[in-house]
Amino acid sequence: MSERPPAFDLVVRNGRIATAADVFACDIGIRDGRIAALGEGLAGREEIDATGKWVLPGGIDSHVHISQPSGEGIVMADDFASATRSAALGGNTTVLPFCMQESGTTLRSAVSAYHAKAEGECYVDVSFHLIITDPSESVLGQELPALVADGYPSFKVFMTYEGLALTDRQILEVMEVARQTRALVMVHAENYDIIRFLTDRLEQDGRTAPRYHAASRPIIAEREATSRAISLAELSDVPLMVVHVSNREAMEEIRRAQAKGLKILGETCPQYLVLTAADLDGLNMEGAKYVCSPPPRDPASQEACWEGLQQGVFATFSSDHCPFRYDDPQGKLTPKGRTSFRWVPNGIPGVGARLPILFSEGVVKGRIDINRFVAVTATNHAKVYGLYPKKGTIAVGADADIAIWDPELTRTLTHDALQDGSDYTPYEGMEITGWPVLTMVRGRVVARDGVLTGAKGFGQHVPRRL
Amino acid sequence: MSERPPAFDLVVRNGRIATAADVFACDIGIRDGRIAALGEGLAGREEIDATGKWVLPGGIDSHVHISQPSGEGIVMADDFASATRSAALGGNTTVLPFCMQESGTTLRSAVSAYHAKAEGECYVDVSFHLIITDPSESVLGQELPALVADGYPSFKVFMTYEGLALTDRQILEVMEVARQTRALVMVHAENYDIIRFLTDRLEQDGRTAPRYHAASRPIIAEREATSRAISLAELSDVPLMVVHVSNREAMEEIRRAQAKGLKILGETCPQYLVLTAADLDGLNMEGAKYVCSPPPRDPASQEACWEGLQQGVFATFSSDHCPFRYDDPQGKLTPKGRTSFRWVPNGIPGVGARLPILFSEGVVKGRIDINRFVAVTATNHAKVYGLYPKKGTIAVGADADIAIWDPELTRTLTHDALQDGSDYTPYEGMEITGWPVLTMVRGRVVARDGVLTGAKGFGQHVPRRL
Amino acid sequence: MSERPPAFDLVVRNGRIATAADVFACDIGIRDGRIAALGEGLAGREEIDATGKWVLPGGIDSHVHISQPSGEGIVMADDFASATRSAALGGNTTVLPFCMQESGTTLRSAVSAYHAKAEGECYVDVSFHLIITDPSESVLGQELPALVADGYPSFKVFMTYEGLALTDRQILEVMEVARQTRALVMVHAENYDIIRFLTDRLEQDGRTAPRYHAASRPIIAEREATSRAISLAELSDVPLMVVHVSNREAMEEIRRAQAKGLKILGETCPQYLVLTAADLDGLNMEGAKYVCSPPPRDPASQEACWEGLQQGVFATFSSDHCPFRYDDPQGKLTPKGRTSFRWVPNGIPGVGARLPILFSEGVVKGRIDINRFVAVTATNHAKVYGLYPKKGTIAVGADADIAIWDPELTRTLTHDALQDGSDYTPYEGMEITGWPVLTMVRGRVVARDGVLTGAKGFGQHVPRRL
Amino acid sequence: MSERPPAFDLVVRNGRIATAADVFACDIGIRDGRIAALGEGLAGREEIDATGKWVLPGGIDSHVHISQPSGEGIVMADDFASATRSAALGGNTTVLPFCMQESGTTLRSAVSAYHAKAEGECYVDVSFHLIITDPSESVLGQELPALVADGYPSFKVFMTYEGLALTDRQILEVMEVARQTRALVMVHAENYDIIRFLTDRLEQDGRTAPRYHAASRPIIAEREATSRAISLAELSDVPLMVVHVSNREAMEEIRRAQAKGLKILGETCPQYLVLTAADLDGLNMEGAKYVCSPPPRDPASQEACWEGLQQGVFATFSSDHCPFRYDDPQGKLTPKGRTSFRWVPNGIPGVGARLPILFSEGVVKGRIDINRFVAVTATNHAKVYGLYPKKGTIAVGADADIAIWDPELTRTLTHDALQDGSDYTPYEGMEITGWPVLTMVRGRVVARDGVLTGAKGFGQHVPRRL
Repeated sequence: MSERPPAFDLVVRNGRIATAADVFACDIGIRDGRIAALGEGLAGREEIDATGKWVLPGGIDSHVHISQPSGEGIVMADDFASATRSAALGGNTTVLPFCMQESGTTLRSAVSAYHAKAEGECYVDVSFHLIITDPSESVLGQELPALVADGYPSFKVFMTYEGLALTDRQILEVMEVARQTRALVMVHAENYDIIRFLTDRLEQDGRTAPRYHAASRPIIAEREATSRAISLAELSDVPLMVVHVSNREAMEEIRRAQAKGLKILGETCPQYLVLTAADLDGLNMEGAKYVCSPPPRDPASQEACWEGLQQGVFATFSSDHCPFRYDDPQGKLTPKGRTSFRWVPNGIPGVGARLPILFSEGVVKGRIDINRFVAVTATNHAKVYGLYPKKGTIAVGADADIAIWDPELTRTLTHDALQDGSDYTPYEGMEITGWPVLTMVRGRVVARDGVLTGAKGFGQHVPRRL
Repeated sequence: MSERPPAFDLVVRNGRIATAADVFACDIGIRDGRIAALGEGLAGREEIDATGKWVLPGGIDSHVHISQPSGEGIVMADDFASATRSAALGGNTTVLPFCMQESGTTLRSAVSAYHAKAEGECYVDVSFHLIITDPSESVLGQELPALVADGYPSFKVFMTYEGLALTDRQILEVMEVARQTRALVMVHAENYDIIRFLTDRLEQDGRTAPRYHAASRPIIAEREATSRAISLAELSDVPLMVVHVSNREAMEEIRRAQAKGLKILGETCPQYLVLTAADLDGLNMEGAKYVCSPPPRDPASQEACWEGLQQGVFATFSSDHCPFRYDDPQGKLTPKGRTSFRWVPNGIPGVGARLPILFSEGVVKGRIDINRFVAVTATNHAKVYGLYPKKGTIAVGADADIAIWDPELTRTLTHDALQDGSDYTPYEGMEITGWPVLTMVRGRVVARDGVLTGAKGFGQHVPRRL
Repeated sequence: MSERPPAFDLVVRNGRIATAADVFACDIGIRDGRIAALGEGLAGREEIDATGKWVLPGGIDSHVHISQPSGEGIVMADDFASATRSAALGGNTTVLPFCMQESGTTLRSAVSAYHAKAEGECYVDVSFHLIITDPSESVLGQELPALVADGYPSFKVFMTYEGLALTDRQILEVMEVARQTRALVMVHAENYDIIRFLTDRLEQDGRTAPRYHAASRPIIAEREATSRAISLAELSDVPLMVVHVSNREAMEEIRRAQAKGLKILGETCPQYLVLTAADLDGLNMEGAKYVCSPPPRDPASQEACWEGLQQGVFATFSSDHCPFRYDDPQGKLTPKGRTSFRWVPNGIPGVGARLPILFSEGVVKGRIDINRFVAVTATNHAKVYGLYPKKGTIAVGADADIAIWDPELTRTLTHDALQDGSDYTPYEGMEITGWPVLTMVRGRVVARDGVLTGAKGFGQHVPRRL
Repeated sequence: MSERPPAFDLVVRNGRIATAADVFACDIGIRDGRIAALGEGLAGREEIDATGKWVLPGGIDSHVHISQPSGEGIVMADDFASATRSAALGGNTTVLPFCMQESGTTLRSAVSAYHAKAEGECYVDVSFHLIITDPSESVLGQELPALVADGYPSFKVFMTYEGLALTDRQILEVMEVARQTRALVMVHAENYDIIRFLTDRLEQDGRTAPRYHAASRPIIAEREATSRAISLAELSDVPLMVVHVSNREAMEEIRRAQAKGLKILGETCPQYLVLTAADLDGLNMEGAKYVCSPPPRDPASQEACWEGLQQGVFATFSSDHCPFRYDDPQGKLTPKGRTSFRWVPNGIPGVGARLPILFSEGVVKGRIDINRFVAVTATNHAKVYGLYPKKGTIAVGADADIAIWDPELTRTLTHDALQDGSDYTPYEGMEITGWPVLTMVRGRVVARDGVLTGAKGFGQHVPRRL
């Protein structure tokens, strides 16, 4: 199939390609940022040799928080430039951050605000979910339907957190809109009352160190809210994505629902595979580095989360990237945060570390195969959230969003290499085998061998449709 | 064992006696209101011949509402005289009504008020549960512990109803007191938000007839709240009684919890065995006669409730007697109640009908054996709520609280015979085989052959201890 | 109720009496070997003071092997005299051994043979189950129906063991007879093929020490056969008793069946509560002392068996007494037995130790209450196997089969005290709190303070009826 | 990418292509029988226009019986020519028939014999499973390992049928070989003893019509054997394929095993989706047309089989093609078959009807999506049985085994069109929307618009490797 002049702008040669179902070896011909051909002996003006490498769909991280206000002078560690830079280095080609409605403002204004923050800043493509914190009549009746039509067909609701938590009634109202507009509701499922009750007790007992964060949010709180959210979705007859599942009990609630034929989806994250509550036990405030919600649990919970990935209970594996600097009074160590775990900002960075961790612990160690890796890191995200078939797979017609992985490259994970806006990684020191050595967005190499090669602002917003 | 003068005040002769575990035939010698002997050939100053009859522990109905205010000019149909009169005629020797805290008042004042209502009025013994509607600091910290110590070791919390529903946080606070005082929490488990959401929708659609009461409180609402209440109890490490379970899904939640080793108890009621939502479909307002919560469901749910009784998932079978007159502007047909099911007073009478229905449908039809009948109508109530061994069984030392049943007597159930304060029974017209022909409280015959023989005020308050 | 002359032959005074449902304090008046009265201040020609003691129904052990031939010159360690002597000392008043059909002989001849062995030898009452090893047409068509009518309404079938194992087809044939005659099938559920396969492998690998007995009969073998037996019973529409359940997986199969409404009963034994496979690891042949089938498992399995007792999955707790002397070429250490675990006689003694172990580990340690103890050691045996109400409870009219327990007496369990025919007990050295201090069969004291006081031959055969 | 001369032998243009995970639109370039390129604007010496059509991997039917002897003068209706002809017309490109060992012969001789039957006869590719009926030492020790190495890495065992049924012990022996050679065991799971027992009873009662075939093989017989086979596989630590699952109970056993992390696979077939036992109720012997094992069940079972396909419990959907002519003394209506259902040859044809039925009932009716259709009809077969990636998908490097489907073509299914060797189809008269309009094996069009275009003998044997 050789020809002159070369048929393609760029050809990825000799790689082993995996999709969510298949593995095959061939060249990829790219033209105008899209995959124009899969074949043998393709020729391009440029060529990348992928001999001995995996050529995979670029990672999609459908759960990241960027530049979200956290109140009380706390500043999120990443803006769109730093978050998408780290994402690119970590093998991702699209991220899905949230536009968070702030109380008393319109959803539309939130969307505009986040677009403004992202505009001209991104190294990889982005697409926004909405966070509904104030489901007023106008939000439900006008704004949401309009925004779904405009390409924002997924909304997250919270069952916990001051100022974010919705009542069951409000969740039902949101689900009703989702049903009518065919949008997807995502839920942060923890029982707020349990958490407040336990937090008060712990504080009364003087248990204010970061380690008590885990005690204040027990598995029951997550299982209960998961079960309740599923009931609300069942009543509303809508699909539901339960994000960041951390343990067996919540996972089994989702599995039970799936076995009943309900369309309940689940997500887990690296912190639930490789961290435990013991990581919160550090000296002084070190534990604050691991404060996220739900908290990491224990080895049995890790095992359950692996099962969920293996057996298809979880459709997606995301980072829940929610970065704060550690040694920073605007980060984890605010004056208030030092007085009690209650005030330590919730969230940990992960957008750059997510894929290497899963590749190394999952694929290399034989817990999941390469197809499942692709499914839970890319294809399912695209399908679940409406980016497919433009994103999420390697097929003719799709965007040339590709990550090339060296399955034998072994390196220690360090924060330095991640190049995000934080000052630490909770995964510091992990030995990782299997790294992305090249990330390509729409045919453009944005990262190579750990070096950022993309241009700020190349990343685009991608409207979605379900 | 004959002697002169007779050893006993009263002897019940020649009956077939059943306890929760045993069946045996002998005489019962009663002295000073207590069972003094079980034996052969006993002689008493008075004797009752029970040849061919079952001699059972008098029924204990641990779930009845008497003289509770319902707001808006609605008047409960029974006072203590009429309720305990009907109870006596229906084979009961003890009933457990509620002292309901009214907002802004103390629990202690509620207890005093209900004692005042009951004083001198009762035909059978009574013992009070508490209903916590305002778990203030003083209620939790002082009143409840003192009242538990005074003989009120069981409190009911509501997860639904305007003015009654507690938040999860409040329920946790109540459970914490229960844990410390070794008291038992009872829960009305329906998700209030679901009900409000659906009620509003139904009303918006003009669906206001009584039949929509059932649609407004679907099985999911009950299952969800049941599951949540169990989670709260598991977290709190307290036993929990889930009252008036109406369907398989809620029953299976309780069974799952029991299989995990949690001390979760369940109760069902006659309305869930013999009524269905179709009963709410009457012409005009006839359906209002069947408005209670949870609503009766369907035949499959009835089957599940029978399984729960048979297999031990349910410890108790109660009436949830909550009577309102039907054809009465202070009862079911208030002016507001005529405008929407939402305003129809919730509750149906049942204290007199409970035992004959279970005997006929359960024992006579072979669904449960006589021991199970005794367990779920008497012994378990006494054990669960702290009346045992004074009440709830036929054994030496126990109060002579006895019901004699004719297992072959067949009569049609009519409201007239029940002699309660209402103007109808939802079970009108049922053919019942097996009736109590004599009820004895502490050795005194209070009802015989459908005729009240007891004295108003003979019934006493019985403090309890767990 | 005093009178002259005393109304009763014997009175047990001042005890705390427990039945399967109740606890009460009173005297027991005994006349002609039966309980004639329960009352206060009873007077008898003889009186036993039970102050501070539990007065319980005498233990019924529905699973004991006595004087059964085991082939190859192996001799069972107990005859009817020694077995019932040990039973009496251990608080039992009735035991149910087996009449085992030997191939090529009639069932009736087996029944006659065992009656001959028992005649004049027993210290406590006995009643026989049948073991069907050759379900020929005449056995199924004539013998079994006749024997059921004669008082032998329970038959055991084996799914393993050379010469005993029936095929599924044969089990179905037996179940069909059970259905028609309303008899109860008992099953030893282990998959014979799995055991043979593994035994051959272990021997090929030179793994012949007693410890490999456990490896040759894994939990899967028991779970599989349990599940299969339940399926056969479900198809046949008969109740089924699964004996000697040793682990969670088999227990859960039974629970699942019960939740479906099937009448599947379960039994567990002391070896599954307090021994583990590690006990088989003794030096030399010491492990042979613990060779029984199914083998003891592990601590998690013990926990599961406790759950089964607590939650009602298991109806009965038996010894599966099957005694062989240890240091005896006709016992555990036959020449062949020394060459491989395969030839070590299967079974351990337990008829005398069963009740103290459960009382101490169960009642005293708070795992089960006294009612449950009575149910699983006496009442349920009587009900399940057709001895009730003559046996199994303390009620007027029942046989005066009573054990008096001192709940505070602490002694070390030793073989000497058990007085059975074996030369060891697998429970040697256990610290036991709570011992039977008096055993009475039909009003006659047969053991007191560890001393046999009964007469050989006083024990009678008790025909049964279901 | 145009060039002269055309790069490809053949190009399929403008189709909508689906794999097990993806859907995309492009051309397929085929060279030397393999897929050489996927791209836009490809040019070939020949071109097929697939505008408006689905272009799918050719169907793989991993469960067909061809030219198997059935004893007693019964002749299977299809030889390799007719079976593969019908397969080709029905959208299949590979079938996996069985080499059945006959008692007393070697496996190798069976393999040779089936190769001889197939040689020069096939229109589509074939690959053989083995059926082990006599797992002798030489079969287990020498023949099986050699045959696995030679490309036959899957063996079927039967738990029922005279002359075929293996004991549990034999199955364990086979599984042990599978473990060592990494081969896959397939199991026909029905409890033989139950079937024999019921068959005898039915015959004794004179119930010999074909309809009693269903009664003789109840769901319990299948569930029990499924559960047992899973236990044997769990013990052996091997994967297991449970073929032709017909109902919920067996499906749930598989799901339970999968949730425990066991590698248990399941298959269902068209007869369990669209037939029921009522089809066996025909007049005279008409019911014989539907006699297969397990028998079709009821609508609830159909629903369960759909769930199994939807939720991933079943990996494959096969025909279990096992054809006998109906009106033929060597087919369904042998003289013996006329006397009792017991003698009616078991099996129905389906190799040609399988795919249209699933497409129409599944894809067109919205029960499964196109990716799931591809997975369960092609890709999973290839992966499970070792044909992947040569077969089972549309990817560069794979054989050009392709079926083009017209999703809107509606036709009535008739036996005539199937062109198999039988004289009927059990699916006669079904209205089917969605038909394969072209089938291509290794780049050669073997069927088009219902007309066979392939050459006998073009089909090859494909050795496999797991």
